[in-house]
Amino acid sequence: MTTPDRWVRFESAQGPRQGYIEGETIVPIAGDMFGDWRPEADPVPLTGARLLAPVIPPTFYACGINYAGHWRTAAEEFGLDLDKSWPKYPEVGYRAQSAIIGPGDPIILPADVPPNVQVEGELAVVIGRRAKHVRPEDALDHVFGYTIGNDVSARGWQFSDRTFWRSKNADTFKPLGPWIRRGVDLDSLVTRVSVNGELRESFPTNRMIWSIADYIAAITRYITLIPGDVIIMGTDGHCPQLNPGDTVSIEIEGIGTLSNPVVAE
Amino acid sequence: MTTPDRWVRFESAQGPRQGYIEGETIVPIAGDMFGDWRPEADPVPLTGARLLAPVIPPTFYACGINYAGHWRTAAEEFGLDLDKSWPKYPEVGYRAQSAIIGPGDPIILPADVPPNVQVEGELAVVIGRRAKHVRPEDALDHVFGYTIGNDVSARGWQFSDRTFWRSKNADTFKPLGPWIRRGVDLDSLVTRVSVNGELRESFPTNRMIWSIADYIAAITRYITLIPGDVIIMGTDGHCPQLNPGDTVSIEIEGIGTLSNPVVAE
Repeated sequence: MTTPDRWVRFESAQGPRQGYIEGETIVPIAGDMFGDWRPEADPVPLTGARLLAPVIPPTFYACGINYAGHWRTAAEEFGLDLDKSWPKYPEVGYRAQSAIIGPGDPIILPADVPPNVQVEGELAVVIGRRAKHVRPEDALDHVFGYTIGNDVSARGWQFSDRTFWRSKNADTFKPLGPWIRRGVDLDSLVTRVSVNGELRESFPTNRMIWSIADYIAAITRYITLIPGDVIIMGTDGHCPQLNPGDTVSIEIEGIGTLSNPVVAE
Repeated sequence: MTTPDRWVRFESAQGPRQGYIEGETIVPIAGDMFGDWRPEADPVPLTGARLLAPVIPPTFYACGINYAGHWRTAAEEFGLDLDKSWPKYPEVGYRAQSAIIGPGDPIILPADVPPNVQVEGELAVVIGRRAKHVRPEDALDHVFGYTIGNDVSARGWQFSDRTFWRSKNADTFKPLGPWIRRGVDLDSLVTRVSVNGELRESFPTNRMIWSIADYIAAITRYITLIPGDVIIMGTDGHCPQLNPGDTVSIEIEGIGTLSNPVVAE
């Protein structure tokens, strides 16, 4: 058996299960994908399986502005001060477990959400090994793998509220998936954001202001990361608007594609 | 058997367990304190048991300024605009699972934390029943019980950083406990914050700007609350400073006392 490089959570008759992808099947495991595990039940066909968010992070981190292109467009579009909005050191915010959905699940726009809900296509880093006081050069040893996050953002609320509670954490606003990919060459990744099949933005995924290693080192100076924690790394360029009836897809070449329909509450 | 009114998590030879307090003992349970449970093993003495944070919330909410006294003192102390800092509607921020410790565990001040780390003594609401689109008049039906939270805050970082990541979520900055109390008369509660046994602040716990019911109604307009979620309700008055060697105690009469020593990293 080769080491599995794509890991999933999926709906089964016994509830959510973990497994890995082998050919056109999912092999369910016993144990914990981040620790001791073994193949358990018979493989199930990947086609027709309902994939869930591949991990539910105990703590869910989000990098703010972390790409030069998004820094410029966000400053223009939202009237931010260009100097003040440049990230002078790696800092994180939080997203909520409560907002997570899986691939294919609908993003539901609340009845009274102000216009201009936008997609933010992001690389999601999944921690695999406990980390505290980690040096940048050792940081990636603590990464289990990578998936895709959509940091759906209601811009009206984002600028009217004190925090990002409903702007970024309304129910269904945090799609994650479709799987966790291991053995990724970060520099080869390209992120592509499409709405209804039309490409709207693309960027080299790893061309960040602060690197994944920088963030892990900064966080773990004060905070312990544990297996399953997720860090979404920010987005670049313009963020297309989402409307009911749309389907939004975020492809990261080398990882996969996260697609979700958009519906009105 | 009377219905248990104090619920705990405690360290056992098999790892963390749930139970309830009966007399001077803890009765371990099988199942889930928020759902189906039954007394399981023999009671263990309460004295000598190591109590843990009584719940690890899937999502951990925090109300900002929610008492008139803290609104005034915070505005003075930190130079906030009085008008702008008044909460015009109930809004929440997030705290991180990663920062939670239990009663008696040390609050560890990071090596390079700026001076003026303060205690915020807060009522912590523990959700017991799934809630979405809940009216204020029904909101308290979704509460399982109440515990005590210390929203430890490094003021230097709080005002220098974009988010509250390390100012309020450095490891050990979120003590919770000592237990969850059910059947509480909210209007009778009094919060008392002491450092090294000296009373430093006290206030009627339920004299909030926005009530618990207001917050639950506001959150659940957009976000589903689930059993185990916690909302810390804000603090009143001045917030005493913490230094290595101190012991900080937050008593809420009618619930219990949460005490933690403070140490330097």
